[in-house]
Amino acid sequence: MPSPTDRNTTPAFLARDDALRRLQAPVDASLREVQERIGDFFTTPIVLIDEVSRHLLSTPGKKFRPTLLLLVAGMKKEPGPKEIRSACVLELIHTATLIHDDSVDKSYLRRGIPTVNSLWDDQVSIIMGDYLYTKAFHSLLEDGYHDVAEIVARCAFRMSIGEMLQIEQKSDPDVTEEAYDQLIQEKTASLISASCEVGALLGWGPGENQRRMAAFGTDLGMAYQITDDLFDYVGDERVMGKEAGSDLREGKITAPLIRALRNAPAEEAARMKALVRSGEALRPALWSDVLGFVEKHRGLEESRQRALGFAERARTRLLSCDDSPHLRCLLEAVDYAVQRDR
Amino acid sequence: MPSPTDRNTTPAFLARDDALRRLQAPVDASLREVQERIGDFFTTPIVLIDEVSRHLLSTPGKKFRPTLLLLVAGMKKEPGPKEIRSACVLELIHTATLIHDDSVDKSYLRRGIPTVNSLWDDQVSIIMGDYLYTKAFHSLLEDGYHDVAEIVARCAFRMSIGEMLQIEQKSDPDVTEEAYDQLIQEKTASLISASCEVGALLGWGPGENQRRMAAFGTDLGMAYQITDDLFDYVGDERVMGKEAGSDLREGKITAPLIRALRNAPAEEAARMKALVRSGEALRPALWSDVLGFVEKHRGLEESRQRALGFAERARTRLLSCDDSPHLRCLLEAVDYAVQRDR
Repeated sequence: MPSPTDRNTTPAFLARDDALRRLQAPVDASLREVQERIGDFFTTPIVLIDEVSRHLLSTPGKKFRPTLLLLVAGMKKEPGPKEIRSACVLELIHTATLIHDDSVDKSYLRRGIPTVNSLWDDQVSIIMGDYLYTKAFHSLLEDGYHDVAEIVARCAFRMSIGEMLQIEQKSDPDVTEEAYDQLIQEKTASLISASCEVGALLGWGPGENQRRMAAFGTDLGMAYQITDDLFDYVGDERVMGKEAGSDLREGKITAPLIRALRNAPAEEAARMKALVRSGEALRPALWSDVLGFVEKHRGLEESRQRALGFAERARTRLLSCDDSPHLRCLLEAVDYAVQRDR
Repeated sequence: MPSPTDRNTTPAFLARDDALRRLQAPVDASLREVQERIGDFFTTPIVLIDEVSRHLLSTPGKKFRPTLLLLVAGMKKEPGPKEIRSACVLELIHTATLIHDDSVDKSYLRRGIPTVNSLWDDQVSIIMGDYLYTKAFHSLLEDGYHDVAEIVARCAFRMSIGEMLQIEQKSDPDVTEEAYDQLIQEKTASLISASCEVGALLGWGPGENQRRMAAFGTDLGMAYQITDDLFDYVGDERVMGKEAGSDLREGKITAPLIRALRNAPAEEAARMKALVRSGEALRPALWSDVLGFVEKHRGLEESRQRALGFAERARTRLLSCDDSPHLRCLLEAVDYAVQRDR
């Protein structure tokens, strides 16, 4: 098999993201350790796994979930081996999910880089995802981190339910906002929530803080995903690393369109639903129609409001925390979730 | 989506398997409980999962791995909730692996029944497998069965390595017997070994018995897989539920061909390797050539000997066990692994 990693070049837009760097400052050293340890996870005696691994490691990602874990735990104590290992595992689980997702969605680009399923095939995607999932659980249990494994297993289970819901809701313009909210809560918010929950567990031990930080993560995750949905309608392709309208082309009816369909007069909504059902809306020429519809019926504006609402709720969950650099960065993470440009 | 499960009919050959029924006799009541509990695992509020689940539950399988766990544990004590839950989890993990395997191998039939990837698609296979994997770990950790989860996680990790090795060795006639043995040890023997190891852990607690029964399971698993490889060369399609030569058509160079290639004079081996590499050997018309080659160069005969050798080694691991109906059935399970007709 030729090495498809040779084709990689890091796009310029990945080089900087000041807001992210700023909020990661208090846990910077730990994040560097996480990145190193993740490299170890990917090292195997099997040539094929190593090729795919090199490709995946060439674009390290934002490490948003490890950052949250380390910031939350760091409000209480210095990070130790258990925090580092747990942060690695959350990033591995996240990566495994992305690989399986891209294969399910038949996506060809992620962060401007070809996906595993496009460089290799769905088969390699299935196996690489399984490898990372099982390696993640194995490494937690091997070290006796049962309490963390319990949270991660529940979360991984919820994410698989979210994936199923996504297939079920595919190309269905009649999906309700409640059903869509459930989907993103399982699929995206659950892992962000688990990151914060594990952070609290490691910082304070089991109890009220754990529950509160899990709830904080859920709200943050909802804000994050709805903002993501908006990017697909208003994002700049050069910044996003993928074309606008990608979600809809993959059959994903997301927050802005769902809200616009809810707001539009019955007749206009019916016309748009018919268009979506026919697959016509997926044609590039009709994208501006969809965009116009979503704008006209306040799909963008109100989704933005919803994202900000979740962000506000997340912030209030932090009210009882003592002031610290870590707390301030967590608040910045909330801003980042709704203000980032990709 | 139409319900592909409507197309199911249970083939006659699944209706009876006396040898299996006999060796399952001492744990029959527990196995029925396992089957019921597995039904609960598959019940969800999500229509799509339930459709796939109904399809999977319509062909319950042999439950060879739960049987082993229950027989081993039963040598020492009556099965309780932990044994039942662990047996369910091993069957779920096995099912998840089969679903991902069939998708990776692009198989259309398993036990004479259409696979998930053929009735739905690779996407549903990915997600259904993930659902079962994560549900399995979640349910073990939720109940606090950390010691079992640790063994299962190590095993699931090894199986993913086995899958990778399988892709790496695909259609490569130069694969050595040692490399192939490693593949089947990771891919098949690891789960059979884990079943016996968990049984011993639950029966006796951690220690020497656990290690001995894990080794017993590894030998049994090797015998089981090499016998399986032989079926692809000599099996009766009506009994097997799939055509002879399926492995080779999927690019799997298995024990009988590897051994024949090792035994054949250099020139003949080179001719067969060229045929395999060109994909010509995969044409139905050439199957009798391959079969003739494998027979002539003692690939069947010697693989059969190897399977029997592993079975014998498995039996000796049981020498120090006290006589009991469970022990006698475990010895029958060893016979079954090498004498079953599918």
